[in-house]
Amino acid sequence: MKSCGIPFQPDDVIRLGHGSGGRLSEQLIERIFLPHLGNKILNDLEDAALVENDSNRVAISTDSFVVKPIFFPGGNIGSLAVHGTVNDLAMRLARPKFLTAAFIIEEGFLIKDLESIVESFAEACRQAQVVTVAADTKVVNKGAGDGVYINTTGIGSILVESPPAVSRAKPGDILIVSGDIGRHGIAVMCARENLEIESELLSDSTCLTFAALELAKHAPGIHVMRDVTRGGLASVLTEIAVASKVGIEIDDSAVPICPEVRGACELLGLDPLYVACEGRFICIVEPSIANEVVQTIKKHDPGRDAVVIGKITETDKNKVISRTAIGGRRLIDKLTGDQLPRIC
Amino acid sequence: MKSCGIPFQPDDVIRLGHGSGGRLSEQLIERIFLPHLGNKILNDLEDAALVENDSNRVAISTDSFVVKPIFFPGGNIGSLAVHGTVNDLAMRLARPKFLTAAFIIEEGFLIKDLESIVESFAEACRQAQVVTVAADTKVVNKGAGDGVYINTTGIGSILVESPPAVSRAKPGDILIVSGDIGRHGIAVMCARENLEIESELLSDSTCLTFAALELAKHAPGIHVMRDVTRGGLASVLTEIAVASKVGIEIDDSAVPICPEVRGACELLGLDPLYVACEGRFICIVEPSIANEVVQTIKKHDPGRDAVVIGKITETDKNKVISRTAIGGRRLIDKLTGDQLPRIC
Repeated sequence: MKSCGIPFQPDDVIRLGHGSGGRLSEQLIERIFLPHLGNKILNDLEDAALVENDSNRVAISTDSFVVKPIFFPGGNIGSLAVHGTVNDLAMRLARPKFLTAAFIIEEGFLIKDLESIVESFAEACRQAQVVTVAADTKVVNKGAGDGVYINTTGIGSILVESPPAVSRAKPGDILIVSGDIGRHGIAVMCARENLEIESELLSDSTCLTFAALELAKHAPGIHVMRDVTRGGLASVLTEIAVASKVGIEIDDSAVPICPEVRGACELLGLDPLYVACEGRFICIVEPSIANEVVQTIKKHDPGRDAVVIGKITETDKNKVISRTAIGGRRLIDKLTGDQLPRIC
Repeated sequence: MKSCGIPFQPDDVIRLGHGSGGRLSEQLIERIFLPHLGNKILNDLEDAALVENDSNRVAISTDSFVVKPIFFPGGNIGSLAVHGTVNDLAMRLARPKFLTAAFIIEEGFLIKDLESIVESFAEACRQAQVVTVAADTKVVNKGAGDGVYINTTGIGSILVESPPAVSRAKPGDILIVSGDIGRHGIAVMCARENLEIESELLSDSTCLTFAALELAKHAPGIHVMRDVTRGGLASVLTEIAVASKVGIEIDDSAVPICPEVRGACELLGLDPLYVACEGRFICIVEPSIANEVVQTIKKHDPGRDAVVIGKITETDKNKVISRTAIGGRRLIDKLTGDQLPRIC
């Protein structure tokens, strides 16, 4: 991970972009967190860590959710907090088993709204076949929160010998996306700003466990799996390009984007490649199994539109290049700030 | 767990007391969380859950920290977030191994303050011999947080066949506290309100791992261990009395309280039995090993003032009774609200 720029100054403050998953987040991790907390496991910057515990390998992932608004078309912070963490585990081909749930609630929050959120949380746990084993509730003063924030930490059993990792992409590999991108980001954005778009667009927030875990049968040819969350497809791919020291080439016209998302992006001046999903993932696989992998993903509802969108190249190392329909090449860079803050 | 009172009404809102660890917290857990999320493990309401993973038993605990102010005499939210979680694991006689760290930071927070916090977090991890394996950073808008909140989840290896549990106290058992109580709560309170008390009082926030884990050699006679945190000694003991269906009798004059805490409590009208610690624990043990246990705890710095303060009784089931020096009996009840909100 490289980030240029001047060191932090004594009066530098946190900006919203530091939470975006883009270049500012990277700086914060690189200059503040890793120098103090870094170790062999954390330095990998995976969404879920793989650890050895008493000769037993487990995957661990943690995420806090601060989405605004708390209720959005297609879900709420409760279901999102489950999906976000079980999906991170699934991306290492680990079966989610245990979840912890920690709620930070603002004084004055309606208890019936809290109950709806806890209900969605529980329903999402049942779908993902994960058990909440530990929980915590804290209350902060009015004006010191924003309704409710949730942290989930997930623990899972690793299913394969060599789990996919962000650094395992190889030239010649094929890039697959499990469905159309950007629904979650646009749905949340429209709810937040009270924008009405013609047909109601729902978030794609969902559990990817089953679509992802069936890919264990194709391992070890599954080199990288990542769910596409904050920062969108572009940010995920730039991270992989750097971590694997490869080039990634995507075919602009092959990336599935539904008309509602495309329309909203045009209207709002957003690039859909940077818009978050919460129920889509990419995988990078050996070319010989690419077709089988697409077929496997398609068998599961959230992956029914899975499609090949690009390949890994020897050239353009550490870069993501988009090829347009008329043959142009566009460099897909990491965002410095954030198109859409507080999307998850 | 029993709590009477009318059901929640549609316009009921969260109050600060719902985060206190007292009766209001209990209601929230009982009426909102457990009906949806409850299961055999979560229903135990332990500070750390014990789970089976691929024939391997692990302890899991999660906690969010929202202490105000973030920096207080004797520590800050970074060290506190480590101590809180590793101590919860140690109370099940589990050796803390892996920690996750999730930061929710308010826009505008000074990056140099964040770095101090991360530094303290890292130092506390080293002392506790625990490794941070996964981390997350989210940023919320100015006015939607209060500087920084931290969630930690800890995973540990269970050292004994029958770990201590809140329901294992038996009539005749002896109650031991590892040191004087109330320093953390009073130190935070004084810092928050800018109160000056004569000598500077420091929080007792510390890692209890080593004092606690050495007790594994006395198991299975160690029936209950609990760190004394929000709600103070009184809340911990009332929980145990109810979960174990026993009476607990404490000798009022035996409970160690330093003069600064006693003085501040008199001044502020607080009952020290309800004031939080972050580096003290109680244990309830078979009478035959009580002396040995006290000696073992005393060998470790945070336990140097360990002392017997009471016993478990067949009478007064589900109640905690304090015997005063002049022979009076006082019922120690769970608080409804909170003496000191946002103490951890």
